[in-house]
Amino acid sequence: MAGRNHLYIPGPTNVPHEVLSAMHAPMEDHRSPKFPAIFKPLLEDMKKVFRTEKGQCFIFPATGTAGWEIALTNTLNPGDKVIIYRFGQFSHLWAEMAKRLGFDVEIHQETWGKGIPLDKLEARLKEDKNHEIKAVLATHNETATGVTSDIAGVRKALDAAGHPALLFVDGVSSIASLDFRMDEWGVDGAISGSQKGFMLPAGGAFLCFSQKALKATETSQYPRCFLDLRDQMNQNKDGYTPYTPALPILYGLRKALDLLLEEGMDNVYARHHRLAEGTRRAIAAWGMKLCAHPGFESNTVSAVVVPEDKDAREVISTAFNKYNLSLGAGLSELSGKVFRIGHVGDMNDVSMLGAFAGVEMAMLDCGFDIKPGSGVAAAVEYYRSTEK
Amino acid sequence: MAGRNHLYIPGPTNVPHEVLSAMHAPMEDHRSPKFPAIFKPLLEDMKKVFRTEKGQCFIFPATGTAGWEIALTNTLNPGDKVIIYRFGQFSHLWAEMAKRLGFDVEIHQETWGKGIPLDKLEARLKEDKNHEIKAVLATHNETATGVTSDIAGVRKALDAAGHPALLFVDGVSSIASLDFRMDEWGVDGAISGSQKGFMLPAGGAFLCFSQKALKATETSQYPRCFLDLRDQMNQNKDGYTPYTPALPILYGLRKALDLLLEEGMDNVYARHHRLAEGTRRAIAAWGMKLCAHPGFESNTVSAVVVPEDKDAREVISTAFNKYNLSLGAGLSELSGKVFRIGHVGDMNDVSMLGAFAGVEMAMLDCGFDIKPGSGVAAAVEYYRSTEK
Amino acid sequence: MAGRNHLYIPGPTNVPHEVLSAMHAPMEDHRSPKFPAIFKPLLEDMKKVFRTEKGQCFIFPATGTAGWEIALTNTLNPGDKVIIYRFGQFSHLWAEMAKRLGFDVEIHQETWGKGIPLDKLEARLKEDKNHEIKAVLATHNETATGVTSDIAGVRKALDAAGHPALLFVDGVSSIASLDFRMDEWGVDGAISGSQKGFMLPAGGAFLCFSQKALKATETSQYPRCFLDLRDQMNQNKDGYTPYTPALPILYGLRKALDLLLEEGMDNVYARHHRLAEGTRRAIAAWGMKLCAHPGFESNTVSAVVVPEDKDAREVISTAFNKYNLSLGAGLSELSGKVFRIGHVGDMNDVSMLGAFAGVEMAMLDCGFDIKPGSGVAAAVEYYRSTEK
Amino acid sequence: MAGRNHLYIPGPTNVPHEVLSAMHAPMEDHRSPKFPAIFKPLLEDMKKVFRTEKGQCFIFPATGTAGWEIALTNTLNPGDKVIIYRFGQFSHLWAEMAKRLGFDVEIHQETWGKGIPLDKLEARLKEDKNHEIKAVLATHNETATGVTSDIAGVRKALDAAGHPALLFVDGVSSIASLDFRMDEWGVDGAISGSQKGFMLPAGGAFLCFSQKALKATETSQYPRCFLDLRDQMNQNKDGYTPYTPALPILYGLRKALDLLLEEGMDNVYARHHRLAEGTRRAIAAWGMKLCAHPGFESNTVSAVVVPEDKDAREVISTAFNKYNLSLGAGLSELSGKVFRIGHVGDMNDVSMLGAFAGVEMAMLDCGFDIKPGSGVAAAVEYYRSTEK
Repeated sequence: MAGRNHLYIPGPTNVPHEVLSAMHAPMEDHRSPKFPAIFKPLLEDMKKVFRTEKGQCFIFPATGTAGWEIALTNTLNPGDKVIIYRFGQFSHLWAEMAKRLGFDVEIHQETWGKGIPLDKLEARLKEDKNHEIKAVLATHNETATGVTSDIAGVRKALDAAGHPALLFVDGVSSIASLDFRMDEWGVDGAISGSQKGFMLPAGGAFLCFSQKALKATETSQYPRCFLDLRDQMNQNKDGYTPYTPALPILYGLRKALDLLLEEGMDNVYARHHRLAEGTRRAIAAWGMKLCAHPGFESNTVSAVVVPEDKDAREVISTAFNKYNLSLGAGLSELSGKVFRIGHVGDMNDVSMLGAFAGVEMAMLDCGFDIKPGSGVAAAVEYYRSTEK
Repeated sequence: MAGRNHLYIPGPTNVPHEVLSAMHAPMEDHRSPKFPAIFKPLLEDMKKVFRTEKGQCFIFPATGTAGWEIALTNTLNPGDKVIIYRFGQFSHLWAEMAKRLGFDVEIHQETWGKGIPLDKLEARLKEDKNHEIKAVLATHNETATGVTSDIAGVRKALDAAGHPALLFVDGVSSIASLDFRMDEWGVDGAISGSQKGFMLPAGGAFLCFSQKALKATETSQYPRCFLDLRDQMNQNKDGYTPYTPALPILYGLRKALDLLLEEGMDNVYARHHRLAEGTRRAIAAWGMKLCAHPGFESNTVSAVVVPEDKDAREVISTAFNKYNLSLGAGLSELSGKVFRIGHVGDMNDVSMLGAFAGVEMAMLDCGFDIKPGSGVAAAVEYYRSTEK
Repeated sequence: MAGRNHLYIPGPTNVPHEVLSAMHAPMEDHRSPKFPAIFKPLLEDMKKVFRTEKGQCFIFPATGTAGWEIALTNTLNPGDKVIIYRFGQFSHLWAEMAKRLGFDVEIHQETWGKGIPLDKLEARLKEDKNHEIKAVLATHNETATGVTSDIAGVRKALDAAGHPALLFVDGVSSIASLDFRMDEWGVDGAISGSQKGFMLPAGGAFLCFSQKALKATETSQYPRCFLDLRDQMNQNKDGYTPYTPALPILYGLRKALDLLLEEGMDNVYARHHRLAEGTRRAIAAWGMKLCAHPGFESNTVSAVVVPEDKDAREVISTAFNKYNLSLGAGLSELSGKVFRIGHVGDMNDVSMLGAFAGVEMAMLDCGFDIKPGSGVAAAVEYYRSTEK
Repeated sequence: MAGRNHLYIPGPTNVPHEVLSAMHAPMEDHRSPKFPAIFKPLLEDMKKVFRTEKGQCFIFPATGTAGWEIALTNTLNPGDKVIIYRFGQFSHLWAEMAKRLGFDVEIHQETWGKGIPLDKLEARLKEDKNHEIKAVLATHNETATGVTSDIAGVRKALDAAGHPALLFVDGVSSIASLDFRMDEWGVDGAISGSQKGFMLPAGGAFLCFSQKALKATETSQYPRCFLDLRDQMNQNKDGYTPYTPALPILYGLRKALDLLLEEGMDNVYARHHRLAEGTRRAIAAWGMKLCAHPGFESNTVSAVVVPEDKDAREVISTAFNKYNLSLGAGLSELSGKVFRIGHVGDMNDVSMLGAFAGVEMAMLDCGFDIKPGSGVAAAVEYYRSTEK
């Protein structure tokens, strides 16, 4: 089909052309004396995105899934108890991973559409007088449902309970796009990936650990090697890596960090909020609802609930096959019930409006009772009144 | 500003990523024994786009402006009479060029918004009993006004008059996107450029000449060198060029031709018609008018007339500065009176709808009395009912 | 410094421009209905490089180090005995990994410069009457010393002993450049990476497992998740991946496989042999020796032993800083004693000759007693007499 | 054939990867308010390469051949007398162009291998008491023979004769690589192209004119349009172009200028001298001669004369077909008598040494009586003793 594919899944996101061009470079010797001048500034500048001065950043040639595993296996011991609130496919997968890796996982089921219940968490932590819980696994942005949890609130719950558990945050679809504050929120392990807010292809697990978490790596008896933070620490301090790095990801990251920091992280957050709010206005104008309950709406992805007599998969396949528009599918128990519009990464007003129009076409084709142009109109009004 | 620029000028058009990647290649020896295997098929396959079997195609490392000059200086003699109908900035520029190059230019002024008046042309040709007119210069698609002229009709006028003048066609913004038929319409010199329907950057003048025109190069006394067709013919027959070719344009052209021919020229024309018709529906829904008079509407660019109390330049600068949306300006006497939406090249439904929404925002910002979403709604209905 | 860097390390290797261009593409939805048509043929065509019909190939967004771990943790149980011959930094690292991951590792130290001693191996396997050894870890090409072991011979030793141990082969710096035969040699797990013979950047672990090894994944109790073959198998069968794939690696792999298979694997092996043999002729002409003992010489990398009074690190830093020529360093106990010339991947005669001349300059600068041009002369004679 | 092509023709030269990546960018509106911020600095920074403060630079979407024509047709009148010394294919072509364009061309034949004879020129200019000669056409670097003429000397000859003729210099294969000084040498029109010292693909004619030459554009009656400097001047002053520019050339030029100016023009000249001198040492060691007579040797290309019983074309085809090494052919009367080694652009020591070794192989294959390694040895000694 002629014309470009229009990509509005919540990751991989659209890679800016400057980033792709930066990745298009010959290989070099990653053990040369020049390499640290490339690698060290990446680790330093990444701290500005994680909003940390005390933490330490890491780059693994892997994905966010590996990031989850790195956090667990480097700081805990086999059998350690961890707690997680599950309210979507990605919190589900993290919980499952922790089980498969042999941890004692206490799973609290929440409604898909809600986020971490801070009161319940605080109560549970207070209850854990012996501090058997070694880590709280918090999904900052549940990509499956378009739900953002309050991580500052999680920290408050921990503090209110005086609980020493490590706080691990899945920030794969939040960091570099949603407000995230490593130091201020007392996060011990923040896990992100290259392919969302960082606007790169997948292939980089970007992580940040607090000194407390790094200290825990010394006592962890969990067997590990490829994903061992200690090997990275040993080599990173001199500007090197324990094994061959994925150079294109590093070259692209340089450019992506330049773009993010030039825009300014607060502006990046504000832009994602505006684009998301326009999306929500469009959805409301169509007379439809988000999967996310009020107060939990994500600024990187919106999961739109289709009427009961409709199948969201049909909307998605129509959009893709007829209009070359890629939307996110409903995952697991949401399959067929929602479609997802990603508004994360290298996006602006006109990008989003094209997507809304495309979604309108696909929904109309599927017999949805919506007024053509209605969503676009609502977003047009919102965007133009809020754009500087 | 974050996010991509949205480019809807009538050229340069958006270059497909496959074409840009094909252009990203090391240089090679253009005099090597391997070079003809690259160059000759380009000239052959280009004939399928010009729709010719009898004509011969040429590639100059130059632009469409050079193409105009090539047609004139290679086939005519200084002082020869040529006739041109002028109804926009590009027909104006071609007429001016012919004057500056020392030809005897008979300019017929037409309303900007109309195309070549076939009756008048036929009458004039019949009047020219001594065949003093050596060439008819016909602007197939006047990019400034969004007007397409009937070239088949021009041929009919020539034939009806039994007139032997050469027929030169400016197809810069038509060939490879609008229906064009070199052989069927008896075109003697067709001039195009790389940066419109061919979906490449500027830097290539793509031309096609009939045997009659090529014969005329032998008798032309016009001094010429860089733009001399004879030097090209001499070298092209062996698969070479008279001076260093612009290799990236050739590498990109290979891919662009593959894309065009795989889609099929008739499908390319039909796609441009659909995208243009949707644009016209949007414009009508806004209650606005085209610069083009009925019957002359272009399928590659639409020039939209703004109300008398509005300045189109304001719409354009708002779109660009506030929304990163590039629209075409009104040129010369149309400055401030129209803005232009390009729908030529690597476009599809969702691409266009994003542009319409962006135009709505810019017009609303400028105080236009339009209903938000109205243009998009009209186009949504048209596109979805006509997309396969 | 002006001019290109000349990269002759044994990985990452030079990426052909066609591969880099193929990697330069927009992201797409890895869960779209079109994705399997991209992914499945990669897995199929990779089998032709591994020389297997019965095995199954896998692509992880990781590196060769991860590949080692995948082989161990997916097929063995914690505490299982494995045997490894250690004769260089990479066999050392694999042995260390196995220990860190909790396996019972029987390490047999061999001279750095030799490969797997087949007689000793056979004797040891015969001794293991109870089949306590669950896997033989064989380093096909020890990149640190430039030593290639006889994997067909390892299989014979296993067969002669009637031993059922799994045969895992580190083929990171051999597969896709040295003769390797998964099925014929009865390899159970072959581990490679994207950044050597596959001519891609690092970021892809390319693996192949026999049915016997795949069967073992069902009984393995080793905790694993990111590197779990079962998740890949589940998703790969439908053409998908368990988490976001590194798309540029996939796009580049498509092109790299096309290049390799078009050349033909036997031709690829022959080319690597020729380029390596020319390198050895140059080294001999300099009056220097390989680290590899006779019969073990690698066709992908040559480790050159410097005279006792010289420091190889000085040669390497002179080559890099003064001539923009990147050579491989001596690792661990070979530090300062050897420098390494990589001749793996996208190389040809003239590429190698430039490197030899650069090495001559660096050695002369470091006071080596060699005759200028001597190495080049020897290689020139060899290459021109053997090139078709 | 596997491995990269080794390109040592005197243009197009190897494009640095940073330049190719910079060219790989989406199109933009060349009439946007942002465009002048891209275009104007290019014209300004180019002045540093032409070494001018008083002159004005121009960029045409064309080639060096067009540049020759621009100089002639914009400043002279039809029939004007010009003088040119002809001593190679490119001075020949420029002379032929001037004739074809209707100028009165006084051609002085010189030995191919020598450059402009300053004494004779001065004598001729003094003889021209009525100043009928309107322009001196000087080929700075004759690419066909590898001969560099003394342009400072040409200026002295003009001054000694008190002659007001315009001085036009073909600097296509000299500017940005050989010492060139627009202002100091009183050059009136300097013509270069993108594909040599500027390290870009062909497709850009880069020019610089003195105020005296620009003044002459006002009185020239020569008909011109596409190549009219006045149109460029009109538009360039505001940062725009008279027709669509070749954007990739502009994007690449930005990077190329950054690379050149960062290295420093004097360092660029010195590097070209060193690389050329090493080439000459290699040629001497082979017992062969340059086409260039002593004192005229070019630092961008060396034309090597083969023994009378040999055919240089065989060397070239062997190098290309057997070794993927591209050398320059002998042109016109030098066909078969010389092969040319380009050492212009993005080159360094190791690049050149690879070429010398490749040339040795090809010559040996053709039965040349040379000692393998001899040329490389001589160059190795020279390069390593002169590299910092």
